[in-house]
Amino acid sequence: MRLSIDVMLDYWIENAADVLLLVEAAAMPDQRLERQDMRVYSNDPLRAVAGEEGIGQRTWARGEGNLRVEYQAEVTISRATIDLAALPATPARMLPAETIAYLLPSRYCESDKFEGFVEQQFAGLEGGVLAAAMSSWVRENLTYASGTSSGVTTALMTFADRRGVCRDYAHLLVSLARAGGIPARCVSAYAPGVDPPDFHAVAELWLAGAWHLVDATGMASCGDLARVAVGRDATDIAFMTVFGRATMNDQRVSVRRIDD
Amino acid sequence: MRLSIDVMLDYWIENAADVLLLVEAAAMPDQRLERQDMRVYSNDPLRAVAGEEGIGQRTWARGEGNLRVEYQAEVTISRATIDLAALPATPARMLPAETIAYLLPSRYCESDKFEGFVEQQFAGLEGGVLAAAMSSWVRENLTYASGTSSGVTTALMTFADRRGVCRDYAHLLVSLARAGGIPARCVSAYAPGVDPPDFHAVAELWLAGAWHLVDATGMASCGDLARVAVGRDATDIAFMTVFGRATMNDQRVSVRRIDD
Amino acid sequence: MRLSIDVMLDYWIENAADVLLLVEAAAMPDQRLERQDMRVYSNDPLRAVAGEEGIGQRTWARGEGNLRVEYQAEVTISRATIDLAALPATPARMLPAETIAYLLPSRYCESDKFEGFVEQQFAGLEGGVLAAAMSSWVRENLTYASGTSSGVTTALMTFADRRGVCRDYAHLLVSLARAGGIPARCVSAYAPGVDPPDFHAVAELWLAGAWHLVDATGMASCGDLARVAVGRDATDIAFMTVFGRATMNDQRVSVRRIDD
Amino acid sequence: MRLSIDVMLDYWIENAADVLLLVEAAAMPDQRLERQDMRVYSNDPLRAVAGEEGIGQRTWARGEGNLRVEYQAEVTISRATIDLAALPATPARMLPAETIAYLLPSRYCESDKFEGFVEQQFAGLEGGVLAAAMSSWVRENLTYASGTSSGVTTALMTFADRRGVCRDYAHLLVSLARAGGIPARCVSAYAPGVDPPDFHAVAELWLAGAWHLVDATGMASCGDLARVAVGRDATDIAFMTVFGRATMNDQRVSVRRIDD
Repeated sequence: MRLSIDVMLDYWIENAADVLLLVEAAAMPDQRLERQDMRVYSNDPLRAVAGEEGIGQRTWARGEGNLRVEYQAEVTISRATIDLAALPATPARMLPAETIAYLLPSRYCESDKFEGFVEQQFAGLEGGVLAAAMSSWVRENLTYASGTSSGVTTALMTFADRRGVCRDYAHLLVSLARAGGIPARCVSAYAPGVDPPDFHAVAELWLAGAWHLVDATGMASCGDLARVAVGRDATDIAFMTVFGRATMNDQRVSVRRIDD
Repeated sequence: MRLSIDVMLDYWIENAADVLLLVEAAAMPDQRLERQDMRVYSNDPLRAVAGEEGIGQRTWARGEGNLRVEYQAEVTISRATIDLAALPATPARMLPAETIAYLLPSRYCESDKFEGFVEQQFAGLEGGVLAAAMSSWVRENLTYASGTSSGVTTALMTFADRRGVCRDYAHLLVSLARAGGIPARCVSAYAPGVDPPDFHAVAELWLAGAWHLVDATGMASCGDLARVAVGRDATDIAFMTVFGRATMNDQRVSVRRIDD
Repeated sequence: MRLSIDVMLDYWIENAADVLLLVEAAAMPDQRLERQDMRVYSNDPLRAVAGEEGIGQRTWARGEGNLRVEYQAEVTISRATIDLAALPATPARMLPAETIAYLLPSRYCESDKFEGFVEQQFAGLEGGVLAAAMSSWVRENLTYASGTSSGVTTALMTFADRRGVCRDYAHLLVSLARAGGIPARCVSAYAPGVDPPDFHAVAELWLAGAWHLVDATGMASCGDLARVAVGRDATDIAFMTVFGRATMNDQRVSVRRIDD
Repeated sequence: MRLSIDVMLDYWIENAADVLLLVEAAAMPDQRLERQDMRVYSNDPLRAVAGEEGIGQRTWARGEGNLRVEYQAEVTISRATIDLAALPATPARMLPAETIAYLLPSRYCESDKFEGFVEQQFAGLEGGVLAAAMSSWVRENLTYASGTSSGVTTALMTFADRRGVCRDYAHLLVSLARAGGIPARCVSAYAPGVDPPDFHAVAELWLAGAWHLVDATGMASCGDLARVAVGRDATDIAFMTVFGRATMNDQRVSVRRIDD
């Protein structure tokens, strides 16, 4: 499966500020960058640094006045569809070092508060069966609705409000998984079929020795997703973090399937 | 039904502090004070003021060093059992002035966050049928467990943790009711059958022109409860608020049914 | 001092919803309603109920499709300027019943968290001197800035962000006052000189047996304010609470001084 | 400087649970492990995995019934005292990849909320001068007091309460530093002079290409600290995380200076 990605960001930055961009698709074994072109219209040089967990890259830019970013890429995704429910459980004490931070609660994923619900709703399940049940539960019990949540919405709020956007679905699934002993992280990604077209956020669950992409919104299948970045929650994977103030003029994200 | 109430509070207050006590059973048409005796061992005079909504009374004391409070009372409760589910709904715009504050979110009852869940879980229900369904839902989905919640626990946390004590049950039921358009307040009360014996907290829902006591823990029936105070949430009905610091030496609450 | 008030609200309500309006200037001894005219373009009858503490009134309306509210009034304000700093302190235990709820923390005014700062910053002060020092501290340490806070901002956040709008100034002053033992409530009001023109929010502090208006933003003097409603925090005094969903088309508030 | 460390943990775990221990001093160039002995009385094998950022190690254990952990070590610390104020600033866009997560807000360090205060209080300062000023501010404005904060206390709460323990000092300094553009992380450590003796928490600030230990409590100097683990906040560096429930029977931490 091959994706064509086209992104344009146009912001106004009154006072000069450093800007951290997280918009480039990551080069990984299951997603090959066929070509990409990143342009930031700025007088200052760009600087690229590795993303969290060494996945993808962050680009530091300097913005003053108008900041315009254009990114085009083609990515070939070769990722087998996994039967999540068939994956065995790993006891917490057998987890590798790099997964442990993803077992712990974070700002938007208060997993320590969900232990009671997980015990009640998913009693007796573990491993992939548990992960699949949690993903189904989130998809069936949330309604996709923009305008009901915001950048301060946490998984606890989404759990009660039963509404949200991709970020909220990911936060809730990640929180449930962690509460159930499954390491889980948030992933920003490009995917066709996201409506309205935008940056997408999904979960990645660690089972049977590997990370597995899960889109609880059901908008994207695992074979459609081009990862940009991973992290504990939305804090880590924001497509743009401005160390100062910026206002949006315009922004567009387009992701299309193209013939290989 | 007649209750014998016996309370003893013994606290240490290093630096002189004003103390607000909310421990006296309220005299109301459906709960008659047969006798009561309140003693505060203090060199300063006590001062009694009306409770919220004119229900019950608050006693101001001055504590310095050892503060010991003893309260004994006998209360006769004459309260018909109501079939909650038979009560009709009142549209929000027909509610009387004194109920409106109890429709709004408060610190521990973030009812504005529960609208999505209420629409999903209780779609099509209203009035007493809705109230009864909410009360059953809370009783069936929470597990009574001390030590899992604390004085900072809010209804959102309890909703995810599915565990708590009477305060948490009351906060969650109150939050659901308000989100469903039913004015709801928290009530501190004495009740036999609370295990371990302690101050009790329940909800009071406004339906068909009156407030109705509902104990979502199932520990007390509506005919067993002697109200002490009402308020928006635990903030208003704490049995003791110290304007300074105090440490507990000892505390006992005993409530028994006695023969009329 | 005479104020001419002109308000227009224009909202779209997709699905029929009850709407609670809190826009009418309150008739009180120190603010006389010379004339007022409230129009709600709706097919359903309006219903007025008393505001919190019996101050002002709330109007229930029913909205479906376009909801347009027009309110015009003239109010004569006869309120002596008080030297806040000259007012004596009242020990907590001497406070009257109706002030006690305003000593306690509320959702947006987490006064229990501010005790340490109050002891540190205002050590040795009490009564009106303390109130005046707190009001000055807030005015000097906050910067008025729209767009930095929102409807979920609490006093704790404002205290760290040092920026906000009138609502945030009022919440912070109210929190500090309560932490210092002075009952404090939030007041919505009309005032000339609010820039940009809008509904205004200020604090009211209880000292020497009465409530005293204090505008920590410095935009309005105490003699310029026409109260609409009082409450524990922004929850209680919102000019419009929709029991459903609404989107704003247009909204205007104009308040002018006119010759008596 | 040489430290002798002696730790004993004794917990009761009713139902078998995995336990993550973070109590071993980290072997690092500036702190040499002379000897160490870690014993966990359990029927299940231990498993050690690397700590966050590859610093120190976590030990997974399995607890059921009584879980007793004993740890003794001697550590030689060879760490030059740095004049923090002499270190130059690094613009955000020049920061290396591994520091970026420590610029972002986390659960207990809501650095995004502190930007206003930092601009107001520390205007014009940057780099080491800013870091030193922030550390002094925290030390001078907080009072060390146990019992006023808890495991849910965040930097925002500490900032208003002006009281706390080492964890709270570290969270506040870390939050201020991040808000001021300095990467900052939390460090658990052993230090003599902590009173009462306990696990200690300090901050580590990234300046001039390296991490620098800063103890805002003033209890330990930088040359006295033996790091155990680093992380975004208290979530990552807890000495024990139980994936289930445990109750403490006994716990002792002793750290002494010994002659080299």
